[in-house]
Amino acid sequence: MIHQQKLRFSTRGRGTYNISDKIEDCVKKSGIKSGICHLFIQHTSASLIMCENADVTVREDLNRFMAKLVPDGSPLFRHQDEGPDDMPAHVRTTLTQTSLSIPVSKGRCDLGTWQGIYLWEHRTNYHKRNIAVTVMGE
Amino acid sequence: MIHQQKLRFSTRGRGTYNISDKIEDCVKKSGIKSGICHLFIQHTSASLIMCENADVTVREDLNRFMAKLVPDGSPLFRHQDEGPDDMPAHVRTTLTQTSLSIPVSKGRCDLGTWQGIYLWEHRTNYHKRNIAVTVMGE
Amino acid sequence: MIHQQKLRFSTRGRGTYNISDKIEDCVKKSGIKSGICHLFIQHTSASLIMCENADVTVREDLNRFMAKLVPDGSPLFRHQDEGPDDMPAHVRTTLTQTSLSIPVSKGRCDLGTWQGIYLWEHRTNYHKRNIAVTVMGE
Repeated sequence: MIHQQKLRFSTRGRGTYNISDKIEDCVKKSGIKSGICHLFIQHTSASLIMCENADVTVREDLNRFMAKLVPDGSPLFRHQDEGPDDMPAHVRTTLTQTSLSIPVSKGRCDLGTWQGIYLWEHRTNYHKRNIAVTVMGE
Repeated sequence: MIHQQKLRFSTRGRGTYNISDKIEDCVKKSGIKSGICHLFIQHTSASLIMCENADVTVREDLNRFMAKLVPDGSPLFRHQDEGPDDMPAHVRTTLTQTSLSIPVSKGRCDLGTWQGIYLWEHRTNYHKRNIAVTVMGE
Repeated sequence: MIHQQKLRFSTRGRGTYNISDKIEDCVKKSGIKSGICHLFIQHTSASLIMCENADVTVREDLNRFMAKLVPDGSPLFRHQDEGPDDMPAHVRTTLTQTSLSIPVSKGRCDLGTWQGIYLWEHRTNYHKRNIAVTVMGE
């Protein structure tokens, strides 16, 4: 069995957004009990990560780490068509994930206790982001 | 066909652990001849990587690289609930993989000659780590 | 339904190679209308990324970023069997992707407008690179 649907998110600029509940809804809707839930973000300046879901400072630290590793407006980058955060967003995406797969068991995402699914917006402005969800299994 | 099982590993602290044989066992057990073997580690402070399997210095160098890129106890990090290696473990996980998929062909993981599947423990202490394995195919 | 095939690429040294058309061909050949296209590069010194497909400076900047983050011949690395670019190639692979999954919808890879699929060669010399393609679905 295969279930496919698109999710559309409005981000409020750079930062992480917990999308676990929305993904869980897709799995429920699919009626699939065991298999895989595959996520694919259709952009190159936002990405997907699994991250600790209890303490917000984890994601703040993560953002601070990335801001230092890939600084906005770095003289290293020539591609600045859309501003100083343009190329850093592409690099951040490459260092994290465009696609993510999660096991489905007993009709649910089989996550660890402290795991959440996050959309990571790397641009400083608001954006619309599409995620293609494919649930495959029985 | 779908085969799901859980693997549980005891790590002896930070470092890489070759789990290729255990994954191969799951594929054999599944009876699936062609498809995909999907791995998902249910934690946010340990991760999965494919890595060179012949020379141990590769993984030592990799650990040294990560220790420099994401230093334990860095003043950049506020989240230190479980010690100086807590937040670095989350960052290292984000920069590597929580889920990994391997092609299954002729009833085996279709790896390249020099590829091994590794669990990468990022915490300095011993931990129990769960990996959810899903083999899908025919 | 499952379709598996191998693709073989000849690289001309370090850099990114757009393989989107070749992957699209595999999906067409499979006859699968909806599901997932799974890619797996059978090497530990070359990797797979999704990247912006319009402006070549994006990939040039990406290469420059990686060259600075993981310098060839760094004294940090002991593994130098095949030269100064040997260990950096393994690190670059670990920081990007060995496996990549793309949703298949209406018989095509369901990519975003600006997304391309790239093989990233991390060695400075020419290499032959194998990618195992598995298309699963209906």
